[in-house]
Amino acid sequence: MAKKTGNNKNDLKEDVSLSPDDIAPLNESADGVRFGVSAELRDAIEDNLDHHNAAAVLELLEPLHAADIADLINHLKARYREPFFQLIKEQLDPETLVDVDPALRLDLINLLNLDQISRVILHLDSDDALSLLETMDEELIHTILQRIPAGERSIFERVLQYPDKSAGRLMQREIVCVPPHWTIQEVSDFIREQKDLPSLFYDVFVVNPRHHLMGKIPLNQLVRQDPKTLVSDVMIEDIHSFPDISDQEEVAQAFKHYALVSAPITSSSGRIIGMVTVDDVVDVLEEEAEEDILHMHKVHGESDFYAPVSTTAYWRTRWLLITLVNTLIASYVISQFEASIQQITALSFLMTINAAMGGNSGMQVVTVVVRALATRSLLEEDTWRAVRKELGVSLLAGSFCALVLGGIAGLWVDSVGLGIILSVSLICNMLWAAFAGTLLPIVVSRFGLDPAISAGPILTTTTDVFGYALFLGLATLFLL
Amino acid sequence: MAKKTGNNKNDLKEDVSLSPDDIAPLNESADGVRFGVSAELRDAIEDNLDHHNAAAVLELLEPLHAADIADLINHLKARYREPFFQLIKEQLDPETLVDVDPALRLDLINLLNLDQISRVILHLDSDDALSLLETMDEELIHTILQRIPAGERSIFERVLQYPDKSAGRLMQREIVCVPPHWTIQEVSDFIREQKDLPSLFYDVFVVNPRHHLMGKIPLNQLVRQDPKTLVSDVMIEDIHSFPDISDQEEVAQAFKHYALVSAPITSSSGRIIGMVTVDDVVDVLEEEAEEDILHMHKVHGESDFYAPVSTTAYWRTRWLLITLVNTLIASYVISQFEASIQQITALSFLMTINAAMGGNSGMQVVTVVVRALATRSLLEEDTWRAVRKELGVSLLAGSFCALVLGGIAGLWVDSVGLGIILSVSLICNMLWAAFAGTLLPIVVSRFGLDPAISAGPILTTTTDVFGYALFLGLATLFLL
Repeated sequence: MAKKTGNNKNDLKEDVSLSPDDIAPLNESADGVRFGVSAELRDAIEDNLDHHNAAAVLELLEPLHAADIADLINHLKARYREPFFQLIKEQLDPETLVDVDPALRLDLINLLNLDQISRVILHLDSDDALSLLETMDEELIHTILQRIPAGERSIFERVLQYPDKSAGRLMQREIVCVPPHWTIQEVSDFIREQKDLPSLFYDVFVVNPRHHLMGKIPLNQLVRQDPKTLVSDVMIEDIHSFPDISDQEEVAQAFKHYALVSAPITSSSGRIIGMVTVDDVVDVLEEEAEEDILHMHKVHGESDFYAPVSTTAYWRTRWLLITLVNTLIASYVISQFEASIQQITALSFLMTINAAMGGNSGMQVVTVVVRALATRSLLEEDTWRAVRKELGVSLLAGSFCALVLGGIAGLWVDSVGLGIILSVSLICNMLWAAFAGTLLPIVVSRFGLDPAISAGPILTTTTDVFGYALFLGLATLFLL
Repeated sequence: MAKKTGNNKNDLKEDVSLSPDDIAPLNESADGVRFGVSAELRDAIEDNLDHHNAAAVLELLEPLHAADIADLINHLKARYREPFFQLIKEQLDPETLVDVDPALRLDLINLLNLDQISRVILHLDSDDALSLLETMDEELIHTILQRIPAGERSIFERVLQYPDKSAGRLMQREIVCVPPHWTIQEVSDFIREQKDLPSLFYDVFVVNPRHHLMGKIPLNQLVRQDPKTLVSDVMIEDIHSFPDISDQEEVAQAFKHYALVSAPITSSSGRIIGMVTVDDVVDVLEEEAEEDILHMHKVHGESDFYAPVSTTAYWRTRWLLITLVNTLIASYVISQFEASIQQITALSFLMTINAAMGGNSGMQVVTVVVRALATRSLLEEDTWRAVRKELGVSLLAGSFCALVLGGIAGLWVDSVGLGIILSVSLICNMLWAAFAGTLLPIVVSRFGLDPAISAGPILTTTTDVFGYALFLGLATLFLL
C-alpha cells in the first residue's frame, strides 16, 4: 500500500495519531503472509481510547476479521481491554469471543447482559457455543440456558454431561444425514432446501432408519456424481467414527494419522449424534503439543503470555517450588560430604558436571518418551523394548562423554583417580537416567498423572541425588 | 470381536502363532478410539517373518489402512523392515511410503526399482509425490524425472525450485478453477467431466482470464445454490491467499488463526498456481510445535524414536556436547573460588541452589517467548513491553523464593550473612534470567538461528556462570 502523496494536510498535521490509511492493520511477514494485528494498529487503538475517540477506533476496526479483533483484545494492555470491549460490544461478532484467549474470555462475557449472551450462544455452531459456556460458572450457565429455546437447551444440557476434553464436547451437532435409497439429485435438493445446515461441512453421512451410520459421501465426490446415481452405490462404507466419550487428543491423533477432514461421532447405542471437523482438531493437536512444551518447562499454560504480571508471577512461583524442593534435596545430599569436599576442594567444582550431564541426558529420554506416548508411537506393551534401546543409547553416549570429561577432569586437577571416579559415576548416572527416564513417564501416566508435568522434575531430582552421592561417595571411599 | 468358540482345532494347536482372527490388528484405547497397529499384530508379523510365512503376513495386513501399514513399518525391529517391505512391495499402496517415518523412507525407496518408483510418484498428488522426491539424492531425482511424462516432469522441476519448507513446496498443483460468468450448473458439469481432479478438494476457485484470483465458492456453498445462479453472484471475494515463497509455518499459523480449510497459493505475478489444504497444515503445525519441544530438550527430531541405537546415540551425544561445554565453564567459574569454599564449606552445597533456580526460571521465560514468537503472539516491536513484564514477574517470584530459600539457608548453616547473600544473589540471577530469557530468543532468531535450539543452552550457561560467580563472589567479599 503506497502512502498517498497528494495528502499534504496529513503530512503537516502535528496530531500524534496517524490517519487510518497510513496504518497497516495486519502483521505482514517478510515473505507476505498476513495475519494478526500489527503493533502499529494496536498502538493507534490504545491512543484513540486514551483520547475517547470512539469513531476513530471503530473506523480502524472495519477491515478486520473476527479472529484479528480477538487477537487485538489479547494484545491490548490490561487497562484498555474493558473500555475497548464496551465500545465494540454492540456490533460484536460472536466468533471474536470464541477466538479470544481463554484467560480473558470470562471477563469479557461479564461485560455483556443476559440477552446479549443468549444471542451470542444461539448464533454460534454448537461446538463454539459450548466453548463459551464452558468458561462460565454453573449458575450463569443455568440462567443462560433458561433463556434459549427448549430444543437448543436440551442439546446443550446433554452435551455438557460429557466429560471435559471428550469427543462429545468437541463435536458439533449440526450434520447432514441422508438415507441410502435416495439419488444424488434428491440429496442435492435436500441440501438446497435445508435451513439449519452447519456453517461448514465436508461430508454427507448415510444412515439407516435407526440413525446408525452406514457410510458417507464426501462433498467433492458428491459433486462429481451423475444426479441419477443412488447414494448406496457411491457411498464410502469403510469410514472412521469415534465414540462420544473418547478423549479428544486420541481423536485428534487419529485424524492426523488417517488425514481425516471430518468424522462422525456415535453414542453408546451406535446412533450418529454429531461430527468433529478438522478445524477443531488443529486446535487440539497444537494445544496438546504446546501444553507438553510449556508443562515440561514448568509454565502454566498458553495464557501465561497474556495474563497480568501478578497472575503470571503466582503461576511461575508455584512451579518454581518444585525446583526449590529439588535443589534443597540435592544440597542436603552434598552437605553430607562436607568433610570430603574440605579435604579435596576439586570435588566442589567437579561434582556439578556429573549431576548436569545426568539431568540433561535424562530429560532427552523423558522428552522422547512423553511425545511417543502422546502420539501412540510407544505402546505400553513395548516398555521393555524401549528401556533396552535407551540403555544401549546411554551406554554409547555415556561412554563417550565419560572418556572426554574424565580425561579433561583428570588432567585439570592432575589426578588419575578423580578422572576415573568421574567417568564411572557419569556412566552409572546416565544409565540410571535412561532407565528411569523411560519408565517414569509410563508409570506416572498409568497413575493418571500428566507425564509432561511430573516425570521431568522427579527424574532430575533422582539424577541430582544419584549424581552427587555417587561421585562424592566414590571419592570419599577411594581417595580419602 | 468375540473369539470363535467352535474352532476347537485352533484351541488345541501348539503353534505359537495365533490365527489372524484372534489378533486385534489396531490399537484401541479404553474409550474406543482405534488407530495404529497393535503390539500383538506387530509381534505376529515378526514371528511369521521368522518362519518365512509370507501368506500369513499378507493375510494379517488385509484389514489395514495404508497409514497403519506405515505405522507397522515404523514399529518393526530394524532387521525385519527389509524382508517385510520386500514382501509387500508388489502390492504397495504409495500412500504407505508417504506416511512412513522420514528417517526410514530412503532405505525403503532404495528397495524399489526405477519403474516402481516412477509409478509411485505418478500415482500420488503432487504434494505427496514431492515429499518422497525430497528424500532422494539429486541423481536419483534426475533419473526418476527422466522417466515420467514431460508435463508432470516440468511441474516437479518447477516446484523443486522453491525453498525448503515454503508454501510452494507444501501446495498441490491440482486445483479446480472456473470463470466468474459461468452458472452453478456449468460448474457442476465441468467438475463431473474433469478427469484430473485433486483427490480431495473443498473449494472451487474463481479466476479471470489471466488466471488471477477473483474469489472462491466452498463446496458446501456450491451444493446449496440454485443451478441457474451465476458464479460471480455467489462467490466469496474476501479470501486468504498466500505467496508461493512464504514460510510454511507462517501459512500454517494463518490457517489456524482464520480456521481455514484450503487456501490458494499465488506466484509472484499474482497467478494462482496451487492450493494448500488443512491436512498438510495439521502436519506442519504439530511438527513445528513438536520440533520446538524436542529441540529445547536437546533431542534431534521425531525420528529419534525409530532410529537404530547407534544413530540415536550419535545424535544425543552431539547435543550433550552443549551441556558438556556449559558444565565445564560453570566448573571453571567455581574453581576460581576454591579457596573460599575451603574456608566456608557450606558454600559448596548452597551455591547449587542459586544456579538451579536461575536456570529454571530462565527456561520458563525462554519457553514462553519461543512459543509466543512461533505463534506470532509476540511481535518484535513489543520486545521492551515483554522485557518489562518479565522483569516484573521475576521481581515478584524472585523475592518470594529469595525469602524462602534465604531463610532456610540462613537457619540451616546458622549464618544470617549467608542467608542474605543467597537471597540477594538469587534475586539478581532471576532478574538476569528474565532479561536475557526474553531478549535471547528474539536476538538469535533475528540472526536466523532457531531460538528453540540455541536460546536455552546460551541462557543456562549465563545463569550458571552468573549464579555461581555472584553468590561465591559476594560471600568471598563479605564473609572472608
